Amino acid sequence: MEKNEMLYEGKAKQIFSTNKEDQVIVHFKDDATAFDGQKKGQIAEKGMINNKISNFFFKLLEAKGIKTHLIEELNERDSLVKKVEIIPLEVVMRNVAAGSLAKRIGMEEGEPLKQPVIEFYYKDDDLGDPLINVSHIELLGLAGREELERLIALGHKINDILVKFLKERNVDLVDFKLEFGKTSAGEIILADEITPDTCRFWDSETKEKLDKDRFRRDLGNVEEAYHEMYKRITGQDWK
Amino acid sequence: MEKNEMLYEGKAKQIFSTNKEDQVIVHFKDDATAFDGQKKGQIAEKGMINNKISNFFFKLLEAKGIKTHLIEELNERDSLVKKVEIIPLEVVMRNVAAGSLAKRIGMEEGEPLKQPVIEFYYKDDDLGDPLINVSHIELLGLAGREELERLIALGHKINDILVKFLKERNVDLVDFKLEFGKTSAGEIILADEITPDTCRFWDSETKEKLDKDRFRRDLGNVEEAYHEMYKRITGQDWK
Repeated sequence: MEKNEMLYEGKAKQIFSTNKEDQVIVHFKDDATAFDGQKKGQIAEKGMINNKISNFFFKLLEAKGIKTHLIEELNERDSLVKKVEIIPLEVVMRNVAAGSLAKRIGMEEGEPLKQPVIEFYYKDDDLGDPLINVSHIELLGLAGREELERLIALGHKINDILVKFLKERNVDLVDFKLEFGKTSAGEIILADEITPDTCRFWDSETKEKLDKDRFRRDLGNVEEAYHEMYKRITGQDWK
Repeated sequence: MEKNEMLYEGKAKQIFSTNKEDQVIVHFKDDATAFDGQKKGQIAEKGMINNKISNFFFKLLEAKGIKTHLIEELNERDSLVKKVEIIPLEVVMRNVAAGSLAKRIGMEEGEPLKQPVIEFYYKDDDLGDPLINVSHIELLGLAGREELERLIALGHKINDILVKFLKERNVDLVDFKLEFGKTSAGEIILADEITPDTCRFWDSETKEKLDKDRFRRDLGNVEEAYHEMYKRITGQDWK
């Protein structure tokens, strides 16, 4: 597979065209940002770990009937995926109060939610990725009513699968962000990544954070958290 | 009707008990606040004007089949209303981009929306009345799914009625806030007020602001705007 010109560079990934019109290569970087890019840094080997973790989750979800963009892992940092038009919504699923939800509705961080919460954020860096509601989404034409219903159903199904899988590995899935894309045939599939960059993972007993919050909040042992999550998810030591 | 002890004091109104268990008196004050109470002031005769304007709108809506808390106007500043348990949601209807919507989704203030937008804000001063979505409302138990559907339908119906009424009086209804309450019988009815405190009214031709934004943004001629709206709505000069 040819890796041609870079089509897009995000905070943690680059996308390259290939010799196939409908396939692109995702390259995972070690770069880490937080607070809308105000904080920048690197997490050693993060790109490699996230490539592995995301592909692991995507394969798990595929096996449970969720369609994803993943075609195959090409090497340590690159994966071949279906080219999609990303729906400009961050779909956030939450099981425990943390981060902006805790602040917004006045709950203590760590308080379990009695039911999963779903939120949509408008992917727009200039606006700071604001929370928006269904009425805003319809106004902006970001997704139709049926597409939204599909995103909500997929969000909950993916959440159910991941919560169960992680619980068995002694990890609480506090919250996580999903992005979906549309194929040229109009099918909505899971895209982007599912990694410690995009999830809050807490040890079920100690509630120790095992995700990018260690970087965001300067908690130390950032790399170790990524190694630990790699191990809990795949069952193998990281190198 | 006896006006007994004060049950509640808000920023612009006081609520008093009466000798009837299921009826209370609303007293409209001249006090005005903005930016979560950081800015405070008075608008001369606002309480009297708002009492009249709100009752006018509530009677208009009643005539169109919308149930409201209004029983009768008692005097210049007091009205007798049904006692309700307020649903702790501000229901905001929008027809033109302004205020927080313009900032949130990156539209120019004054840009007409191609369809009305509905938003729910959690009535909680300590949290700054945050925007919340349906999932948050369900988590917090603020309203059931059917109640929410009812609030959405009522919001749109009230918006349609008021937009048409005001347009004929050369006023654009940019946006406004509604509050609903539940009677002891469990019926959802319109409560609170509809006034230049809770609406953005713009002259249809000049786009001059005829509402509390004149106070919020120090635009001057605050009292004159309230007088003008009284005149346009009722057809009579204010005193």
